[in-house]
Amino acid sequence: MITLHHCVSARSFRPLWLLEELALPYTLKMWPFPPRVQSRDYLALNPLGTVPLLEVEGVRLTESAACCQFLAARFSPGVLEVAAHDPAYGAYLNWLHMSDATLTFPQTLVLRYSHFEPPERQQPQVVEDYSRWFGARLRAAEAALQEADTLCAGRFTAADVAVGYALMLAELIGLSSAFGPNVAAYWQRLQARPAYQRALQAQRDAALAQGVSPQPATA
Amino acid sequence: MITLHHCVSARSFRPLWLLEELALPYTLKMWPFPPRVQSRDYLALNPLGTVPLLEVEGVRLTESAACCQFLAARFSPGVLEVAAHDPAYGAYLNWLHMSDATLTFPQTLVLRYSHFEPPERQQPQVVEDYSRWFGARLRAAEAALQEADTLCAGRFTAADVAVGYALMLAELIGLSSAFGPNVAAYWQRLQARPAYQRALQAQRDAALAQGVSPQPATA
Repeated sequence: MITLHHCVSARSFRPLWLLEELALPYTLKMWPFPPRVQSRDYLALNPLGTVPLLEVEGVRLTESAACCQFLAARFSPGVLEVAAHDPAYGAYLNWLHMSDATLTFPQTLVLRYSHFEPPERQQPQVVEDYSRWFGARLRAAEAALQEADTLCAGRFTAADVAVGYALMLAELIGLSSAFGPNVAAYWQRLQARPAYQRALQAQRDAALAQGVSPQPATA
Repeated sequence: MITLHHCVSARSFRPLWLLEELALPYTLKMWPFPPRVQSRDYLALNPLGTVPLLEVEGVRLTESAACCQFLAARFSPGVLEVAAHDPAYGAYLNWLHMSDATLTFPQTLVLRYSHFEPPERQQPQVVEDYSRWFGARLRAAEAALQEADTLCAGRFTAADVAVGYALMLAELIGLSSAFGPNVAAYWQRLQARPAYQRALQAQRDAALAQGVSPQPATA
């Protein structure tokens, strides 16, 4: 039994998308964003107040890239996962960590200080600093995709889901002008995946059924 | 042959410490911080301009937590690594990702906007916002260490090195007042490890030998 606690198009979209790639049964519990403010009940489940919270086989994960790595290792070894003995293992780990620590972190600053904070607490300089930072770091993906259709191992892996979410969020918050041609084409390919489309549909259906707005908080 | 590109007490301290835990031979190449500004030559090695750059067996890693995970998997399976079939695997992954994406990320904001930026670009509000953020997220470690001496698997693993570095950086930048009693005691235990002490000595010796200041850029 797998339960994913999720806010529409938040970082928890990473494990949602991966669950759809794996075609695993799961329960999707929707929360308004940010749950630590909008729904204090959530703190009883996850004292950090963050999403995702992924509950699987008695294990609880709160880091979205770790969720991807865990699900791939447990349910798709050698397919969506890259095994430790594979020459691409180092690149696989590096992309998984980079997806959140290096690519999504600057996005959260842009979002916070241009959107979520009240006008008197907005910080245009920080928004500009970290928009530029995101663009600079994304060049690593542009270079990797010059030679291949996916980020590593010559095939689609959990790392593509993890980095793909950073591209989805970039589009939502107006940072997609940082995409070079390789990243832009890659992002088109990712969006065409049936599992990506099913994940979008799953969050919309679950939000409506559970009385949560189906719009992302970024809208 | 392993080469680690490193700045004194920067995030690249994570793989440095782990290399000392593993007692592996390695070459330590020191750079002034930040290398992308202080030493343009570095961009030929790592176009992102960031440290670490870890070169091992033809693999190049730039994410500090990924370096730890990679080194542990390759050179210490089942010892400093937690294997995929271990019940603690999910917690291990979650701590590795949390160490950088959730714990070090707010620290970099505090450092940037209180220290590295010129006075007119400093941002006291951001420093306060992310000092508080760091403290709130660190509560997960305080809770985990209530019941155990290490973060997961009932033993010292690469996750302790990765999170331990976040505590080292917190002390350097004045955030250690956020440590609860369990985290404070854990940090004392980590500092007493011979490999941690050897890593401090190694960066000092290499900096002096290579004509780089042995002081952290945070000083």
